[in-house]
Amino acid sequence: MNALETHESKCDVLIVGAGPAGLMLATWMAHCGINARIVDKRSTKIFNGQADGLQMRSLEIFDSFGFADRAWKEANHMIEMCMWNPGEDGIIRRSDRVPDVPAGLSRFTQIVLHQGRIERFFLDNIKKYSKDTLHVERAVLPESLEIDEKLCDDHSQDSYPITVKLRYLTDEEATPAQSNGTTVQDGLFRSNMAEDDTDDLIQRSREKQGSTEIVKTKYVVGCDGAHSWTRRQLGFKLEGEPTDFIWGVLDVIPITDFPDIRMRCAVHSASSGSLMVIPRENKLVRLYIQLTEIKPDASGRADRSRITPSTIISAAQKILAPYTLTYQYCDWWTAYQIGQRVGTNFDSRNRVFLAGDAVHTHSPKAGQGMNVSMQDAYNLGWKLGLVVKGVVKPEMLGTYQQERRKIAQDLIDFDHKFSRLFSGRPAKDVMDETGVSMKDFKDAFLQGNMFASGLSVDYGKSMLVAKEEEDEEVPQNTGSTQTKTSQETKNTTPKSNQSLAPNLPLGMRLPSHKVLNQSSAQPHHLQTLLPSDGRFRLLLFAGNILSPAQSTRLRSFCTHLSASPFLAPHLYTNIDILTVHSAPRVDVELLRDFPDVLHRFDEKTGWDYDSVFVDDVSYHEGYADAYGKFGIERETGCVAVVRPDQYVGFVGVLDGEEGWEGVESYFRGVFVG
Amino acid sequence: MNALETHESKCDVLIVGAGPAGLMLATWMAHCGINARIVDKRSTKIFNGQADGLQMRSLEIFDSFGFADRAWKEANHMIEMCMWNPGEDGIIRRSDRVPDVPAGLSRFTQIVLHQGRIERFFLDNIKKYSKDTLHVERAVLPESLEIDEKLCDDHSQDSYPITVKLRYLTDEEATPAQSNGTTVQDGLFRSNMAEDDTDDLIQRSREKQGSTEIVKTKYVVGCDGAHSWTRRQLGFKLEGEPTDFIWGVLDVIPITDFPDIRMRCAVHSASSGSLMVIPRENKLVRLYIQLTEIKPDASGRADRSRITPSTIISAAQKILAPYTLTYQYCDWWTAYQIGQRVGTNFDSRNRVFLAGDAVHTHSPKAGQGMNVSMQDAYNLGWKLGLVVKGVVKPEMLGTYQQERRKIAQDLIDFDHKFSRLFSGRPAKDVMDETGVSMKDFKDAFLQGNMFASGLSVDYGKSMLVAKEEEDEEVPQNTGSTQTKTSQETKNTTPKSNQSLAPNLPLGMRLPSHKVLNQSSAQPHHLQTLLPSDGRFRLLLFAGNILSPAQSTRLRSFCTHLSASPFLAPHLYTNIDILTVHSAPRVDVELLRDFPDVLHRFDEKTGWDYDSVFVDDVSYHEGYADAYGKFGIERETGCVAVVRPDQYVGFVGVLDGEEGWEGVESYFRGVFVG
Repeated sequence: MNALETHESKCDVLIVGAGPAGLMLATWMAHCGINARIVDKRSTKIFNGQADGLQMRSLEIFDSFGFADRAWKEANHMIEMCMWNPGEDGIIRRSDRVPDVPAGLSRFTQIVLHQGRIERFFLDNIKKYSKDTLHVERAVLPESLEIDEKLCDDHSQDSYPITVKLRYLTDEEATPAQSNGTTVQDGLFRSNMAEDDTDDLIQRSREKQGSTEIVKTKYVVGCDGAHSWTRRQLGFKLEGEPTDFIWGVLDVIPITDFPDIRMRCAVHSASSGSLMVIPRENKLVRLYIQLTEIKPDASGRADRSRITPSTIISAAQKILAPYTLTYQYCDWWTAYQIGQRVGTNFDSRNRVFLAGDAVHTHSPKAGQGMNVSMQDAYNLGWKLGLVVKGVVKPEMLGTYQQERRKIAQDLIDFDHKFSRLFSGRPAKDVMDETGVSMKDFKDAFLQGNMFASGLSVDYGKSMLVAKEEEDEEVPQNTGSTQTKTSQETKNTTPKSNQSLAPNLPLGMRLPSHKVLNQSSAQPHHLQTLLPSDGRFRLLLFAGNILSPAQSTRLRSFCTHLSASPFLAPHLYTNIDILTVHSAPRVDVELLRDFPDVLHRFDEKTGWDYDSVFVDDVSYHEGYADAYGKFGIERETGCVAVVRPDQYVGFVGVLDGEEGWEGVESYFRGVFVG
Repeated sequence: MNALETHESKCDVLIVGAGPAGLMLATWMAHCGINARIVDKRSTKIFNGQADGLQMRSLEIFDSFGFADRAWKEANHMIEMCMWNPGEDGIIRRSDRVPDVPAGLSRFTQIVLHQGRIERFFLDNIKKYSKDTLHVERAVLPESLEIDEKLCDDHSQDSYPITVKLRYLTDEEATPAQSNGTTVQDGLFRSNMAEDDTDDLIQRSREKQGSTEIVKTKYVVGCDGAHSWTRRQLGFKLEGEPTDFIWGVLDVIPITDFPDIRMRCAVHSASSGSLMVIPRENKLVRLYIQLTEIKPDASGRADRSRITPSTIISAAQKILAPYTLTYQYCDWWTAYQIGQRVGTNFDSRNRVFLAGDAVHTHSPKAGQGMNVSMQDAYNLGWKLGLVVKGVVKPEMLGTYQQERRKIAQDLIDFDHKFSRLFSGRPAKDVMDETGVSMKDFKDAFLQGNMFASGLSVDYGKSMLVAKEEEDEEVPQNTGSTQTKTSQETKNTTPKSNQSLAPNLPLGMRLPSHKVLNQSSAQPHHLQTLLPSDGRFRLLLFAGNILSPAQSTRLRSFCTHLSASPFLAPHLYTNIDILTVHSAPRVDVELLRDFPDVLHRFDEKTGWDYDSVFVDDVSYHEGYADAYGKFGIERETGCVAVVRPDQYVGFVGVLDGEEGWEGVESYFRGVFVG
């Protein structure tokens, strides 16, 4: 390596950190064809342990990129949650069984698979869609970040306001030593109890020889975890406090007579603390175990040297008694101190963004951390992609903090409540006021279940969500250009009519029901027709197109659609058109009954057969009744705009001039003129 | 390459030909851990064209090896079949729509994906399960095959009765020139109209320098196609005649106004011949087109130089008129002359076997060829594997011809009838006796639909199928040791009691319904619990195990099971035990209610949680009612033995001594003592 050699380069988006959030961002970059880079200070990907619960919404997102099936096939599926509590004799008993997630919300259920596999799927997908041009650059450390304030508002092609200095580490620098010297991987060096090692690496690197690179870039996304280097460069803080609750985590193959070891379980013992059982793939079980005997010192931090697999399993044995629990194989272990913190700012001047643990940290037991982190990046990625390509207005970037900070706040509020209920001693009876009521715990669990699915996310009114009313909670707009955006939005946002499709809720992700391809009769889940390719969807619920009146309405709408000078350049490239009609499939013919714009002709490949669908009975998979489930009137239908991330942005009438104006007005608020 | 150098080596199974049948055989070898080799004279795998329809049964088999999901994801799914016939005015009209396959037969439907992808999945699976020890050796040509008759009946470890000489070709030899010199791949060089090129290659190779290898092997399987070199070495014949019907095949992206181009269609024109539409993946459509203007000469063979994509599309245009049809992209094309032929012998002395096109050829339109070929090899593979390992009696190999020759005969009988109905001119009216009645055609199609699913296969009584009655059709046992086998079988086969589970039919593949894991509540299709790993399954339908009487019956049965000196060495290694009970899941506990033998303890990994299941309601996937669908009494249940290929071998009572004797007697007839 050439000492002190410095290269210079340019890219559009630089991602710092290749955990789940960074990889999600990179996946969007690959699918949108953006000139991006992703760097990580570690020299290898992780291979086991870490976060592992995948929410239904995360699986829907994976499916939109094309790899949910890999996770679904390898993972353990969580079906039932059992609650164990002490009886009057102090002995634990199963008190409740509830479904792990409510039925009917998604075509997926919650699954568990370790983070190393999930990162593998991301890496493979990025490789495929970027045609091998985008890959994680490991053992690369950012050393400085400078923002040229004068250039920040100039989002044009040649404006690179940010300069980042990267340094290429030696293997030795990039791989921190395991803390316990054993062959079992522990997670302490990446847990929130470990010392932040980034500064150490920079310290050490100053004494070493290594090449550096100056990167000029348009946007930086810090996905670099709870100790985020990027966040510190911006001077932003996480707000919140640690608690006194210390928990250990063991990934083991358990040898036990506890009957529910293959169920998700919450176990409250009478006086030895609590434990959560998360069954995993390959016979593994993850145990979250409260370590009641370990207390933080005066500085608020616990003595990590006292925590070993042996102290953790001992604590678990006391909680689970009279059942026995041992193991011969341990795959991974760690420990953490519960705390909830959220960032004050999610972006700086719409140029540097923070996602995932870099802006919110909390306890892992709710199975949320990785999911919310990935979903942060999923919210941001397409917006960045479309701004870089010059398709949408740059102020759209302000919706990232507006939409995601509220989610993070909700998450830590939930975690704050849930952690205390879970870590608290169970009440002996109704008079025991310092104990936790097991009824309260169950209620909190059920209440949080919907939240924990990832499906309750409801984004507020913005240039992207044409809601009729402002959200109750006004987003905090510190340090971003968002306030201006909200002002502008008010002027351009069209009026939605939610009553036309009550169950296609504005601001929420499109629920999925099966529809049939008009030309092949094949059933498809509607959501699978909206892959994450950076395109908005114009969803025409065309109604009964065999009725002459409705056919006239549809043709009038389509005439406007084809003739719009504003939208013409965006059709098909930035706006995909999908039609779902409600007439009997066998009475309808694609070429006869639908305007060409809905199934366009290509001189090399003929008519498009994959854009017109029908809500009708299938031979093998029953009748989904999509119109009925969305609450859409079967005769007259409606039109909806769905964002590239599958969230509903607009609902209006499908009727000539009036319907058309709503749609065009939505897109005028979004696209560059 | 060292001229005339000759190596010598040994292997247990040598597979000649790496098409779908050969790859299926190799997949079994990989899953059973057999020392096998597979050679193919061509230098590369195929990349497009060829056979492409996958029956439901083939997908079930793929799933048992672990790769059905890949095919399912990439393929086009065939849902509906449309029939087009001339009206009184001679113009074609859609006369019928029927489901492509009947509903409810399988968890899969019929799909279409080109052979190159299917071979890819096999290759990847073989690599994974053989731990990269078994791979296709391409550009390797067998030159001679000798059988040492004296050793044939000695199936012991050190007996290698067969000697095959292999020669390593140069690239030039291994890749035949395309017949038309264009960049579009055509299939003529592998179709049944092409000259057999194997002998040519041997001729040419005599003038070239190349190394050869002498392989001593126990078994050879010839999967080397219609012109099988292996078959010719054995002196076996295919019996049957070609017809005068010549068909062309085009894989194109069609540009057309024909409304049903994305449906499977059978189109009979008034006087221009017939056409079949098979929609494919990636916008492709396969067209089978009758070439009425091409006739065979006096030798019975057609002039191939007259057949080009242009003559084929012209024929299609006439058939489809007044609809238009053109294309700009052609992926592959070929032509063939219909003929049905079946081999006299499927094996020689239980040492050399023939599978697939090597023993039966027919027209491709029934979508059967590749499927029946793969299913031949699927029937043979585990038998070879278990004989090589010394687990089962060598005479079991005789059941290959017994079971598969009847299937081949049924296939060509069906194809004979179907081809003539399809290639014939439609009758103008009921008085038109030389025309084909379109009602007869539809009836034949519907009748053949079940056959074409691959699910109607019903193997006769043998050492592997404890049927109460002999099959009506006695298998032809020419040249194999099968007659002896049948004699022996009669003495040892136990009595099944089919009435205990009427819909778990002896000799047919296990139908699949969902059951729940007792320990995790996860639903599984029963068939997915029977992966192709070479093990027989003892399926205990344990009934209502909360009833004391039934619990006593089950425990008595299990006591015999654990105590049997004959079966003890086979339990878990060669016989997997699966239990499905019918008591309410939440009232049952694995460790309390089931004998240990049903969920054995391992000192490193604890109890087995993946062997006991329940027929109960699931949270997300409804209630499958497996007992009801199998016709099994819910209180008392029954016991079944399922072969390693998922075919039902035995059904009996689950009741102490009597039930146990049936099971032991079945396995005494199968396993080496």
